[in-house]
Amino acid sequence: MTSIAASGVRCAVPFASADRIQLGHGSGGRMSAALIGGLFMRALDNAALAEMGDGAVVTADGLELVISTDSFVVSPLEFPGGDIGSLAVHGTLNDVAMMGATPICLTAGFVLEEGLPIATLERIVASMARAAAEAGVNVVAGDTKVVERGKADGLFVNTTGIGTVHPRCRPGPRRARVGDVVIVSGPIGRHGMAIMAAREGLEFESTITSDSACLVPLVERLTASGVEIHVLRDPTRGGVASALNEIASASRVAIALDEEALPVPENVRAACEMLGLDPLYVANEGILLAIVPEADATRALDTLRSHALGRDSAVIGRVTGQPAATVILRTALGGTRIVDLLPGDQLPRIC
Amino acid sequence: MTSIAASGVRCAVPFASADRIQLGHGSGGRMSAALIGGLFMRALDNAALAEMGDGAVVTADGLELVISTDSFVVSPLEFPGGDIGSLAVHGTLNDVAMMGATPICLTAGFVLEEGLPIATLERIVASMARAAAEAGVNVVAGDTKVVERGKADGLFVNTTGIGTVHPRCRPGPRRARVGDVVIVSGPIGRHGMAIMAAREGLEFESTITSDSACLVPLVERLTASGVEIHVLRDPTRGGVASALNEIASASRVAIALDEEALPVPENVRAACEMLGLDPLYVANEGILLAIVPEADATRALDTLRSHALGRDSAVIGRVTGQPAATVILRTALGGTRIVDLLPGDQLPRIC
Repeated sequence: MTSIAASGVRCAVPFASADRIQLGHGSGGRMSAALIGGLFMRALDNAALAEMGDGAVVTADGLELVISTDSFVVSPLEFPGGDIGSLAVHGTLNDVAMMGATPICLTAGFVLEEGLPIATLERIVASMARAAAEAGVNVVAGDTKVVERGKADGLFVNTTGIGTVHPRCRPGPRRARVGDVVIVSGPIGRHGMAIMAAREGLEFESTITSDSACLVPLVERLTASGVEIHVLRDPTRGGVASALNEIASASRVAIALDEEALPVPENVRAACEMLGLDPLYVANEGILLAIVPEADATRALDTLRSHALGRDSAVIGRVTGQPAATVILRTALGGTRIVDLLPGDQLPRIC
Repeated sequence: MTSIAASGVRCAVPFASADRIQLGHGSGGRMSAALIGGLFMRALDNAALAEMGDGAVVTADGLELVISTDSFVVSPLEFPGGDIGSLAVHGTLNDVAMMGATPICLTAGFVLEEGLPIATLERIVASMARAAAEAGVNVVAGDTKVVERGKADGLFVNTTGIGTVHPRCRPGPRRARVGDVVIVSGPIGRHGMAIMAAREGLEFESTITSDSACLVPLVERLTASGVEIHVLRDPTRGGVASALNEIASASRVAIALDEEALPVPENVRAACEMLGLDPLYVANEGILLAIVPEADATRALDTLRSHALGRDSAVIGRVTGQPAATVILRTALGGTRIVDLLPGDQLPRIC
């Protein structure tokens, strides 16, 4: 998931156009960035928050820790490939991992709506427990609040994770360098389209399942391989396009994507075409973007492909110099187009 | 605030009476305990969670850390003496402090309802920033989600805090010993009644203001004084009665309260009488309960009274042996009555 920090793109859009919160403010796109930069970052101003990572680095008695927080409001609560419980575990563990850190624990804070079936809650908490156990991490503290019927939507859950920083791995959104390659660890667009299909009752030839997964093992292998990792990011809300825009903006570089290299599953492509969506903006919950020096590209690909989650890893683009803070797509037809942040929300409540 | 862990009283009520979530499941009383013990603790089973503190102790590279999480759903969002922003800072910092730890940072995860006035959000985030600055702690990471109009109630916010453990202070709900005294650091019932009065538009001779405050300085003084602190607890949701029941249950002791010693402000007493509420069950957000050996009682009182927040500190009871897991009130009229956990919710959504 994108933290305040992660969404904190310094963008030129002033935060003045709205006097009320709109759905687009939660999109991970331009309106989110404006809300975060114009309101949250300004009020809560501090160096850790300003770093705009997927989490913050804090120091406790000389020990560097990563902390990341995420609230989950996905609708429906259960969907092909996961549910809000497993998603809340994967999402926050992945954010900790994207900081080059190893997660050590999670917390969970629930807001429950009066009338939620206990059986639903039991399934979701069991799924959360399984996901945490698979990652080897405990949910060590929690909280439960209940609000009246009609004041929430089933349940919302916040998870917060702490991790310890790897001594040799300090990726960050400002560290992309001209000449680096952009690697994606798997097919794009599955999570968002699985949610859309479940929500709208859409039927495709094959069911689209969410890619929701814990990326910690993938990051561990990459770190252990000795690859110099400049940037790690899980392209969740706002998709690959928004994640790369944030990185291009933070690093003051251009990123050129190769459309033909983008791994878009056939059922995702068909669903996107039917709904008029661009898979580059569709959320993912089980893939990562790694930006590494070109010299390390082969080793990075081999390492990622050695794990089931990274089997389909591919180079999808390169970091170039100009125009700064821009993502460009080289289309299959040989043209180019700018891949901008979306102004508002293409797919609300996918995480 | 009460964490999953804090609410995890091992109680005899089986978790089977309901098939849907009810408001009482968020009360901090018997239904909360049943939900937490019967569902969350069972599914998420681990040693840190089972400790039932206000937070969990985890170890990172040999360093002991405390982590605590809390979601805030208070209604109304702004009330005399505070708002959901300052409350979310105080609540989580206080939970960290109740573990005998010094908070080092906070995270904040917002769920915003479409249509929330931006001006309201700005006031609340500014209040959060002020409360954090006063405590000397930064909000280092955050997250923002937006849900459709009617799917939340203005805004909910989760805060999670990390702290470092004090080497000489390890309070815990299991550590109350026969002969200890129970100290409260200030007047009881203000927060809950301030919320009720604001919500219901009740007018009293004087406005009841919430006691919402950061208790970290109070704990720091107490720790530095050398007092042997057995238990620290902020009696939030469920009030003094529920907090002491949890402690009596965890320590397998009885706690005898002296009704005449309970510091209940006159306007709180009047409001409680009008509404048929017992101030012992009303939430507080700026006082602590300290259980210390009788030999340290005077030093503890002197230390607490040396700070403005603890000026009205008083001994309100004693730890006795039997009947175990029971709180007894010696009434002003000379009788005694059992102060049990409430079955359900007396005051929903006060935090």
